[in-house]
Amino acid sequence: MKIGVIGSGSWATAMIKMLSDNHQAKQVYWWVRKQEDVEHIRAYKHNPSYLSSVEVDFADEYITTNLSEVVAQSDFIILNTPAAYLKSVLQPLSVSDFAGKVIVSAIKGIVPDENMVVGDYLPYAYGVPLEQIVVVGGPCHAEEVSSERLSYLTIASRTAKHAEAVASMLQTRYIKTILSSDIIGIEYAAVLKNIFALAGGICHGLGFGDNFQAVLVSNAIREIDYFVKALDPSDRDINHSAYLGDLLVTAYSQYSRNRTFGAMIGKGYSVKSAQIEMNMVAEGYYASACIQSIIKKYQLHMPICDTVYQILYCGGQPMQEIKKLSDSLT
Amino acid sequence: MKIGVIGSGSWATAMIKMLSDNHQAKQVYWWVRKQEDVEHIRAYKHNPSYLSSVEVDFADEYITTNLSEVVAQSDFIILNTPAAYLKSVLQPLSVSDFAGKVIVSAIKGIVPDENMVVGDYLPYAYGVPLEQIVVVGGPCHAEEVSSERLSYLTIASRTAKHAEAVASMLQTRYIKTILSSDIIGIEYAAVLKNIFALAGGICHGLGFGDNFQAVLVSNAIREIDYFVKALDPSDRDINHSAYLGDLLVTAYSQYSRNRTFGAMIGKGYSVKSAQIEMNMVAEGYYASACIQSIIKKYQLHMPICDTVYQILYCGGQPMQEIKKLSDSLT
Repeated sequence: MKIGVIGSGSWATAMIKMLSDNHQAKQVYWWVRKQEDVEHIRAYKHNPSYLSSVEVDFADEYITTNLSEVVAQSDFIILNTPAAYLKSVLQPLSVSDFAGKVIVSAIKGIVPDENMVVGDYLPYAYGVPLEQIVVVGGPCHAEEVSSERLSYLTIASRTAKHAEAVASMLQTRYIKTILSSDIIGIEYAAVLKNIFALAGGICHGLGFGDNFQAVLVSNAIREIDYFVKALDPSDRDINHSAYLGDLLVTAYSQYSRNRTFGAMIGKGYSVKSAQIEMNMVAEGYYASACIQSIIKKYQLHMPICDTVYQILYCGGQPMQEIKKLSDSLT
Repeated sequence: MKIGVIGSGSWATAMIKMLSDNHQAKQVYWWVRKQEDVEHIRAYKHNPSYLSSVEVDFADEYITTNLSEVVAQSDFIILNTPAAYLKSVLQPLSVSDFAGKVIVSAIKGIVPDENMVVGDYLPYAYGVPLEQIVVVGGPCHAEEVSSERLSYLTIASRTAKHAEAVASMLQTRYIKTILSSDIIGIEYAAVLKNIFALAGGICHGLGFGDNFQAVLVSNAIREIDYFVKALDPSDRDINHSAYLGDLLVTAYSQYSRNRTFGAMIGKGYSVKSAQIEMNMVAEGYYASACIQSIIKKYQLHMPICDTVYQILYCGGQPMQEIKKLSDSLT
């Protein structure tokens, strides 16, 4: 198997580790954006910026900034950049580059401007057939992969053999895989959970406690259920780990960037100063705007998402908005 | 309204606080088991043993160890002892004492030997009609009530006006109420969540991380859904806050006794030494045995509950049992 990994953040680095620890014979090509990072990884066997504790033992020639080469060499292309940068990263490529490849999205975000998850965007922008797409869902924080804590991935594709192939390359002693066919549901749930984790962070920052948080999260999973049903009414149990589990790990974990970002907003930071302070992308911030346009388009009733959008983009006062929200929770 | 509160643990004390802070005209009678506690509360206006930060400003004559008097005086009787002691506490009473009263269960546990939730036990043992029973569900840690953090209670009864009456006496600035008719579902969910919180604690004690915990909890809510459907196939959304919220607040909160107890088991304490160390009842320990007999009777498939029972009562090795369980999670 020839596998290309596109991206070098925490989750990409975690996936490189899984691919290395997995015993199946394979060749991995790793596209890293900056030449200096390529050289650092070659020299020191660690990613200088993300998940630096992970040892990356690659032959030099398989780490590169040459995207076209990685794509050309690979049968499976794992997309693993922040969603916000996907468009610009893929920009040098054309429809023919993707032909015949299996495209694996590990992105968990929405493509800005287009307001599409990757499973919608790739068919639209590069003519990738939906049957060639695989989605990797959580619940899985990269940080716990690096410390080899038992974690589960849900691998979704409309083509069972592609899902099975991706599952077979990622399974390790500490990674179990679950198969699914619900690409769109898993992708949207993964996007939405970041908004809800951000909401949970805001409430935490404002001083709300565990009792309130539990009510918020139980309302959040119902918003997710309602949203994905509206967009794709497939048969799914929203309480499976790819949906509810992914929400929980993000809303309740100390590692969640979205929760941390939200907590800063709740404590009174402006959006801009929270972003500067964190020095990391909180996907939920971008997702909020994208999801809001979908909510508007389909006229959906999503009170928690509306509240987050009001706070982040419309100057809503956090305490006032959350108090208003609290009257509608059940 | 004349209201009797039976019990003086954390949750009973929290409810005394809610009743005091609620503005509706009422007379509250409080049954406290030990005479020395009655005297301490009379003298110092605080419960000496539980939630001691709460100020209890009662006229002396309304705090008493005389159960029959409290019951005789009250139209609403709020039962708020640990489930394990309910039978012995109620033992002096007879069927006629309950006649015409509304019985409110805030117990969240199962009556030992009988393997019944309170909503089943009171009709069986004291001929209380199901229509006279009200159940108070969470998610609501007593500790956060004492610090007046916004919390939600679900008040369930088959008689809407009884649920409304109880809601109207508990609402405060920091307590919102939600009405329901699902007595049995809410009671069993509240019992089961303690077992799952205990399971989460065991896994935490063994070193499993947030990723695994998220998978465990998303499987747990499906076990709850399956169990309550088997016992009472009413129409309910298991993701409402009385079910999922109650599970979350217990499984994820620092205040959860069951989680703490489980963590000690996971770290290698024996059941006995964990009990001695904690000096508090972990309801999940008793619930595990009771629920197991129901599982057996109805031949239900409850892998997490089975695992906890194996560890607590059958000498199962925590790591070995959880590893076995981990193969069946989805």
